[in-house]
Formats: sequence, C-alpha cells, structure tokens
Amino acid sequence: MSDGGVRIYSSVHLGPDGRGARDERVAVEEPMEVRVNGAPFAVIMRTPGADRDLAAGFLLAEDVVRSADEVGLIEYCVDADDEGRDNVLNVTVTGEAVSRLDDRLANRRQVMMTASCGLCGRRTIESLRARVASVEGPWTVPASVISSMPATLRAAQAVFEATGGLHAAGLFDLDGQLLRMAEDVGRHNAVDKISGRMLLEGRLPLSRTMLQVSGRTSFELVQKALLAGIPLIAAVSAPSSLAIDLAREVGMTLCGFVRGGTFNVYANQERVR
Amino acid sequence: MSDGGVRIYSSVHLGPDGRGARDERVAVEEPMEVRVNGAPFAVIMRTPGADRDLAAGFLLAEDVVRSADEVGLIEYCVDADDEGRDNVLNVTVTGEAVSRLDDRLANRRQVMMTASCGLCGRRTIESLRARVASVEGPWTVPASVISSMPATLRAAQAVFEATGGLHAAGLFDLDGQLLRMAEDVGRHNAVDKISGRMLLEGRLPLSRTMLQVSGRTSFELVQKALLAGIPLIAAVSAPSSLAIDLAREVGMTLCGFVRGGTFNVYANQERVR
Repeated sequence: MSDGGVRIYSSVHLGPDGRGARDERVAVEEPMEVRVNGAPFAVIMRTPGADRDLAAGFLLAEDVVRSADEVGLIEYCVDADDEGRDNVLNVTVTGEAVSRLDDRLANRRQVMMTASCGLCGRRTIESLRARVASVEGPWTVPASVISSMPATLRAAQAVFEATGGLHAAGLFDLDGQLLRMAEDVGRHNAVDKISGRMLLEGRLPLSRTMLQVSGRTSFELVQKALLAGIPLIAAVSAPSSLAIDLAREVGMTLCGFVRGGTFNVYANQERVR
Repeated sequence: MSDGGVRIYSSVHLGPDGRGARDERVAVEEPMEVRVNGAPFAVIMRTPGADRDLAAGFLLAEDVVRSADEVGLIEYCVDADDEGRDNVLNVTVTGEAVSRLDDRLANRRQVMMTASCGLCGRRTIESLRARVASVEGPWTVPASVISSMPATLRAAQAVFEATGGLHAAGLFDLDGQLLRMAEDVGRHNAVDKISGRMLLEGRLPLSRTMLQVSGRTSFELVQKALLAGIPLIAAVSAPSSLAIDLAREVGMTLCGFVRGGTFNVYANQERVR
C-alpha cells in the first residue's frame, strides 16, 4: 500500500513514567462516493488506495456487476471540486449490469448506504458540525481511571468469553464505574444499544460519561458518541484519521491503545490529568 | 446478555494431535428490520438482545430522533410471519422527528442500508441462494497450508505494522502462496478490493483460491466470498452464526481461530486433509 494509507498525527502518551508528546502513524479513513453511470450509488468509508478495485468489488457484492465484460471505464470525477476529486469515482457498466443497476436503484432498500454524506472528510465533518457543534464536558479524569476501563468492561462481558466473536462497548461514569454495557457482532451496534437505552431513559446528553470500545475507533463511532453527547471515547486499539479529525473539531477527548497501563490521547488531552 | 446471543455449533478442531469433533459456542448474527411509523427504514445485521435499545440508538445516530419525547411505542411487528416476528421492529416517532424522518426518506443517500435483505437469517440465505446456489471447488488442501496463511498475510502487511489500525485480507492459491492482499479501515472493503481486482482482471470465479481475513467472519464476508466464487474462507478469529449457516448452505469451507498451528472448521471440512 502506498503512503496514502498513513498519516502522521501528534498525540500524547501517558504511562507510569508520566506524559510525553509522540508522533503516531494513523491509518487514513476517507469517504469515497461511488457513482454508477453517473448516478450516485453509495458512499463508502475507506482507506484510499486500490479505489477502482474497491468500487468494482463493491458492485460485485451488490450484484450489479458479475464479470469484467460488464465494466467499462472507472474514473475519478473531474466535475468534483479540488478537494473531492480523489474521493468520487464513476463506474460505467454495460450489458445486463444496466438492468441490474436499475433494479437496485428502484429498490433502494437493498443498496448499501452509509450514515456519511458529502464528498470528502472535511465536508463530512462540516455537515455534521452544522447539526452538533461540540460536546460539553468541563471536567477532568485521572489517567488511572481510563486505564482501568478495558478490564472492567472485559469482566462484564458474558458472551465474548464464550464465543470470542463479539464486540463490546461500555458506558462509564467519571469514577470509572460501568453504567451500561452491550455486546454485538457489529461494533457500531454495541454503541447504538447503549446510546439508545440512554435516550429512551431520557438521559441525553451524556455529558458526564465516557465510552470504552473493544476495537478500533472509526469516524462513525466518534459520530455516534457526539450525537449522544459523550465527551470522551477510549479504545483498546487504534483510531482512524477521520476519527481524530472529528474528535478534535467537536471537543471530544479521544484515547487509543488503552492497554497495559498506558494509552495515547489524540484529541483534547486537557480532560486527562 | 441473554442466552439468545449464543448458539452451539458442531465443528472439527485440527491441530498437531490430529482431528477431533468439538462443540463450539458461536455469537448469533441475525438481520433486524427497523420500520419507522410503519415504513421500512433499514436492515441491520445484529446479535439479538436489547433490540429496542438498538433501534432507538440507530435512529439517534441517523438523526431521526433526538430525545425520549420523540419516541413512542417500539414494538415487534405482529404482521410478520412466525419466523420473522422477532426480527422486525416498528418504532413510532412523534413531533419534529416526523419531519426529520421525511427528510431522510426523501434523501435516501443518507440512510443506512445493508447489503442484506429479507426478514430473518433463513430468508436472507434463501434469497442469496437464488442468485448463487453454491461454490465449486472439488479439491483438498493440507491443514498445514491453512495454518500458514495468517503469518504470510501479516508479513505482507505494510500499514498495519505502522498503525495497528487496519484490517487485512489475502487471497491465496492452494499451495499457500499469496496472490493478492489488501488493507483497509473497513474489513469488508479489504475483501472488496481483492474481489474487485480479480473481477477486473477477468479471473472470476476464483474456484482454486482461499481467502484469509484478519478478524472475524460475518455473514457479509461469506456472501462476498460466495459472489467471487471462493470455496474456502479462513479467519484469525470467530465466525458468526449466520456466517456458518450460509457457508454450510453453499458448500463453502469455513475455518476460524486459525492461530498457533490449530484451527476449527465449521463448514464443509472435506476440503481440509
């Protein structure tokens, strides 16, 4: 993979030896809009690179195209603005793929769409900020509380222990007590199960809580935390570039690699003391 | 989480000591259709449990609802047939959520839809089988070749080493040689990048190849392998229930927990010798 897949972000590393600045290499995440014969078909959050392959494979999985004969030119759209140019791809399809495409467009229930809109990361974030400008949470938390959350969440996980197959998310108070946890084969679902329960209980915005997730942090997870009003998200593994960009924009603290008593803070470190 | 989240599947465990039958606990994955005020809105692949919370949280993330006041009854649909009854949920929304819903339905580009259709696992699989009945691959492969694939894939991963943030997928020949690999923040994308490249090169169906993925195996990954004609999929971690169901139906070999020289086969073990 080319260097386009990686970007350098400044972060703060916290551990037993204190706090230090550190440059981290982060996997790039950006939305790509796929158009088919000129018509918008889907927006996919992806790591740039092999974009034409991705578009073709996505259309295979959507059963629009079935063979190379049915695929003509795959081109970046020159009518997009400078910023979006590398993130809009038009696929020309021919033969029976045209009628399959018409079927899919007529029956949008079967078409994959993401929650994201807009053409590039910046625009996506701007459109989201128009809805929710920032998270409110004028508090601080000791680094030791953040370090303790993964073990607390793991101890509460029933199904993972049995199957190894589930993602978990946990909502914590500022003392590190687990308020709610959820498990699901889909990591986004585990977060939705928590925010949904809190919404139904009339407890939004969740200004005095922290969210711990078992895997990586994507743009969509930060977005979900934002809409629930959660000011801090922590993950056992790495964040994506767009997750960091969004967290920085909206005042959310973003921690990654929370394991073994150390972690990195990629955004709004002032909440961690 | 209730026992509804786990199901027992028979598997075959292969390791240095040979081959033995083993019952495995597997995380359940089933599609849930979310309707809003009676209209189909989305189909989410999820682990059953906390379904009402999931529906509410999903609609929060989609910016249809913003507070508890806007949510009325959340009910399983009694007009669905027996099999689908637990997998169709109608959410009644009120107040400003109604106009937000109309906006979303009018602008379907922004609505999350999955590649899945139908009301329950069985129906989803039946509809898929109507398109692609089975994978063809009348060959066998030594267990040692499957065991070798994760290390080969890891050695080829450039970005993961640097960021810890990417999923990888690798396409192998029957001797365990890596034909193609892809990395992406989205695991489905990594598979699409591979199948798309092979499609563009006119090499489908991939009847004499095997697919190795870095994480878990979901229904969607098996579906993507099926549409590319790949007869064997292997993963470092666990499969979901629906991934196993689909692999069994279509004649695909499904291996899980491929690590440290051992693995489990959940479907069509006859290809592994």
